[in-house]
Amino acid sequence: MIIYDHHLKVYYKDVDKMGIVYYSRYFEYFEEARTELLDSIGLDVTSIEKEGVGLPVVESHCEYLKGAMFEQKLIVKASINDIPRARLKISYNVFHDQSEEILARGYTVHAFIKQSGKTTRVPNLVLESIKNKI
Amino acid sequence: MIIYDHHLKVYYKDVDKMGIVYYSRYFEYFEEARTELLDSIGLDVTSIEKEGVGLPVVESHCEYLKGAMFEQKLIVKASINDIPRARLKISYNVFHDQSEEILARGYTVHAFIKQSGKTTRVPNLVLESIKNKI
Amino acid sequence: MIIYDHHLKVYYKDVDKMGIVYYSRYFEYFEEARTELLDSIGLDVTSIEKEGVGLPVVESHCEYLKGAMFEQKLIVKASINDIPRARLKISYNVFHDQSEEILARGYTVHAFIKQSGKTTRVPNLVLESIKNKI
Amino acid sequence: MIIYDHHLKVYYKDVDKMGIVYYSRYFEYFEEARTELLDSIGLDVTSIEKEGVGLPVVESHCEYLKGAMFEQKLIVKASINDIPRARLKISYNVFHDQSEEILARGYTVHAFIKQSGKTTRVPNLVLESIKNKI
Repeated sequence: MIIYDHHLKVYYKDVDKMGIVYYSRYFEYFEEARTELLDSIGLDVTSIEKEGVGLPVVESHCEYLKGAMFEQKLIVKASINDIPRARLKISYNVFHDQSEEILARGYTVHAFIKQSGKTTRVPNLVLESIKNKI
Repeated sequence: MIIYDHHLKVYYKDVDKMGIVYYSRYFEYFEEARTELLDSIGLDVTSIEKEGVGLPVVESHCEYLKGAMFEQKLIVKASINDIPRARLKISYNVFHDQSEEILARGYTVHAFIKQSGKTTRVPNLVLESIKNKI
Repeated sequence: MIIYDHHLKVYYKDVDKMGIVYYSRYFEYFEEARTELLDSIGLDVTSIEKEGVGLPVVESHCEYLKGAMFEQKLIVKASINDIPRARLKISYNVFHDQSEEILARGYTVHAFIKQSGKTTRVPNLVLESIKNKI
Repeated sequence: MIIYDHHLKVYYKDVDKMGIVYYSRYFEYFEEARTELLDSIGLDVTSIEKEGVGLPVVESHCEYLKGAMFEQKLIVKASINDIPRARLKISYNVFHDQSEEILARGYTVHAFIKQSGKTTRVPNLVLESIKNKI
């Protein structure tokens, strides 16, 4: 398993009138965390895209267990559990920085596509980096 | 089944550097569509909240089949298929306005909570409105 | 003066924990309104971009007079008051749909750039459309 | 002058189809930077709000000099230059982390309001913290 702890703080922009983080914002948190996870194993997304390969999200999921509030500090634990075949799945668990209480959990699934828009196999660059660290 | 067609247009704010709608934006589209769906059966969320009941999202899901692009017109078909017990599930299908091609589909699950933060039963107001229309 | 009334509704995604629209969201409302304003004089942004010209925002401004709230209906009046030379200025006034009370006002200034990133003159397509309608 | 350097990174969520940060996102960056600026002088916004005082934005402004791109690291330098009377003005300059090139600059003006919605004087807590550090 490859795992990365992404630290962030909740700002006003994230919080709705119930005083908790608006539900779609978690997917922005997930994106931050997976960009850092990939970066931590030598895969910056900019470089992957320069090779003509995009990683669009094809599926996303989140369960909201407890609301995160303004000025709280969170940890998003992003992880890759399996070597990708056609698709890459990344999982996320969101915790309070201090209480370590879990607030949300989810996943995203990514395809690999060429500039033509056609699906392609996992690029070797990505596959090798993941194999080496998993 | 209660169903509502919500029409919207993709703007620059929604689109990422792949030229397609960023994945978390669909959850904003879903929220617009469910607010209009509930409104169409006489349930404006502001009134429900004035009774001291919130409808936080407890689960969200989306599958992305084809990217929606800038200045395209979309229809989000939101639907309630079952009478809610503890939780209310709303489903969404996103189509091109003209080609009627499906672009994305997903769902959200909502709990009912009191101001104390405790889960409560489906308010009668909500239950009766849904029963009458389903 | 070219003027366009863009109608919209405030959703949960827009509102912060003070219960009013979060300040940066007005710039998304402004973008929706200017896209529709340009469309109303035959200028869809997609077509302008296909000619290799982008319209990045080079300046933005907003004054917030009264908070807009969840489920309120708003009108964003977007207007072009002058024939653009190097830059295009668009002004916005945000009103309550019913009370006609003004809630916010602002403007954006746009440059015209080629794909090289260099500033270019106002494309003829844009200039003629504005001259014909102003 | 009170000054704070807020470090951040540009993610996919921030970038539009021109490949640069979408114009309204800078106001989210500004909010992050001012929350940290205030925190750095002992003023967390949550505590101010618990005293029944809100700090809504009444004016915002930004000039965009050069586009920031995906995965770039930025510094937002937020500063308070004057002791607030009725209103608090905060200025922002956005730089590339490495080249130190300026990308954008702007400001926000904040009022102080009571829960009644009425404008109030600058709370002593805020005034003293700023006077001590300016």
